[in-house]
Amino acid sequence: MLNVDTRPIVLTGDRTTGALHLGHYVGSLKSRLALQEDHRQFILLADAQAMTDNADDPGRVARNVVEVALDYLAVGIDPEKSVICVQSALPALAELTMLYMNYVTVSRLERNPTVKQEIALRGFQRDIPAGFLCYPVAQAADITAFKAGLVPVGEDQLPMIEQSNEIVRRINRQAGREVLPEARAILSTVGRLPGIDGRSKMSKSAGNAIPLSAKREEISEAVQAMFTDPDHLRVNDPGCVEGNVVFTYLDAFDEDPAEVEELKAHYRRGGLGDMVLKRRLDERLQALLGPIRDRRADLATRPDFVIDVVRAGTERASKVAEETLDTVKAALGVFSFGRS
Amino acid sequence: MLNVDTRPIVLTGDRTTGALHLGHYVGSLKSRLALQEDHRQFILLADAQAMTDNADDPGRVARNVVEVALDYLAVGIDPEKSVICVQSALPALAELTMLYMNYVTVSRLERNPTVKQEIALRGFQRDIPAGFLCYPVAQAADITAFKAGLVPVGEDQLPMIEQSNEIVRRINRQAGREVLPEARAILSTVGRLPGIDGRSKMSKSAGNAIPLSAKREEISEAVQAMFTDPDHLRVNDPGCVEGNVVFTYLDAFDEDPAEVEELKAHYRRGGLGDMVLKRRLDERLQALLGPIRDRRADLATRPDFVIDVVRAGTERASKVAEETLDTVKAALGVFSFGRS
Repeated sequence: MLNVDTRPIVLTGDRTTGALHLGHYVGSLKSRLALQEDHRQFILLADAQAMTDNADDPGRVARNVVEVALDYLAVGIDPEKSVICVQSALPALAELTMLYMNYVTVSRLERNPTVKQEIALRGFQRDIPAGFLCYPVAQAADITAFKAGLVPVGEDQLPMIEQSNEIVRRINRQAGREVLPEARAILSTVGRLPGIDGRSKMSKSAGNAIPLSAKREEISEAVQAMFTDPDHLRVNDPGCVEGNVVFTYLDAFDEDPAEVEELKAHYRRGGLGDMVLKRRLDERLQALLGPIRDRRADLATRPDFVIDVVRAGTERASKVAEETLDTVKAALGVFSFGRS
Repeated sequence: MLNVDTRPIVLTGDRTTGALHLGHYVGSLKSRLALQEDHRQFILLADAQAMTDNADDPGRVARNVVEVALDYLAVGIDPEKSVICVQSALPALAELTMLYMNYVTVSRLERNPTVKQEIALRGFQRDIPAGFLCYPVAQAADITAFKAGLVPVGEDQLPMIEQSNEIVRRINRQAGREVLPEARAILSTVGRLPGIDGRSKMSKSAGNAIPLSAKREEISEAVQAMFTDPDHLRVNDPGCVEGNVVFTYLDAFDEDPAEVEELKAHYRRGGLGDMVLKRRLDERLQALLGPIRDRRADLATRPDFVIDVVRAGTERASKVAEETLDTVKAALGVFSFGRS
């Protein structure tokens, strides 16, 4: 069979621990909409990875598979262009992980900066689940299963790509030829969107997020509550733009950057009130999120359709992943009934 | 469907790192022949586990899948009675392992006495492959996939059963009901067969083994070379029975224990030469191994038949393991397309 699909392959995805929010939109969904136009994009509903630190609540992880799929379709991920698939429903990923685990040492995993940081973040200390320690290996399985050459990540996730490439080189060396391609990071050019409190990045657990499904009033309330410049008490006072969440959001969501720059200058000089800015941001967010919310609500009334879309994507992904597994096994010389 | 098979379920198997020898016969194969008569016995060709410390030579591991299968059939493992299956060809085992890894901490694995001992034995120190550290979890997947209540092991492997049962209890607690049964060890009543040098247990790598495929002369030479009592220089001298490998083997292989006891008494008194004993042992081993060698040689001329037997066993095993995986996932509430 001639493989005529020469588009570069991208792997991306989300741990299914909660519905997605504006931070995800800015940080990844938006670029996925662009990527799907000229890349072969696999988007993983990473429920197996979510289990590595949510093993006490598998039900939540499972429910959010559907929630995140709804978010994808609502923002415009097109299942004809992108392959949306469920990680736990792809046995080849588990098989590749188990195979790769023989080529990575425990100490190498313990030195992984991302893992170290996340272990501290979660307060795991010595009670790290084995699955959590090994999740960089599982990510290598995800990346290589689809032979992805490109992986969009934040800077803090670069060690994961490095770990994957180490495994790729080890496998290729063992096989004596290039079986798997190395992957390159697509580094996000936009910073992490802060939560409406401005204190940390937007996250559901921090309670500072605007979900993609947010209702009109919910959005307005969030904008009203948004952190600006606490010393900007009177309209005529000069205001501070840096750390002012409303401006950060205008930078992210306003379609007229020149006008936003003028507003910043005005705000700095004094004479521009928060309410004017918040009204403008509210309009922009309503315009962005309104259609997403409506599509999402509509799709939510057709769960069978959503499941069918994800099932079809998973089947497509499964074919690719199984093929890679067979290729890797054959290249290493692992037992197969076909090649006794 | 009514499940009428109420025989107790046994899981056993061998890492496929080399063809089997007399030590395996005494230590496990013989009891498997008995077990298959009234147990539902699954025998795992554990090539995936063999990879945890043979990742630099997957080809050897793969070749020995067939060699060990030949050994099984040659000694009389009956594929109608026992299910012979290939570990790496059962994706459900990898999937269960990945799932269980979320319920076991790294420190718990590091404390596993068997793992600690084997790490020392292999000189891994800090360069332990992640797959090796996690192999007790993979064993738990093996045991539970077939819902085995019985696992024949040596005393040194008891911590593996304990680890498996810990996972079983954790899963059952998480699910709120008994999803998986705990397993019990069948402890071997026979000691480990020493190699012909008497210095350590029989093993191919120690060069002190008699393979099940040994030719007539090979057996005779091994018996001739066998360690006896180095101080028993003249026939009339009293000889030592303890540590005398010929007597250890007569205990293991002679069908007339009473006569062996008489020979021991005679040897202790003096007047019984090594040659007489070695001739007796040689006869016994030739009688045991001759038919095994012949059947093995015959089967080796029909590799397709052997592969077909193993393929059929693997298919039977796969059905059982997939069913267990589905049960465990459903009990935990892991995502499934069936239960959106």
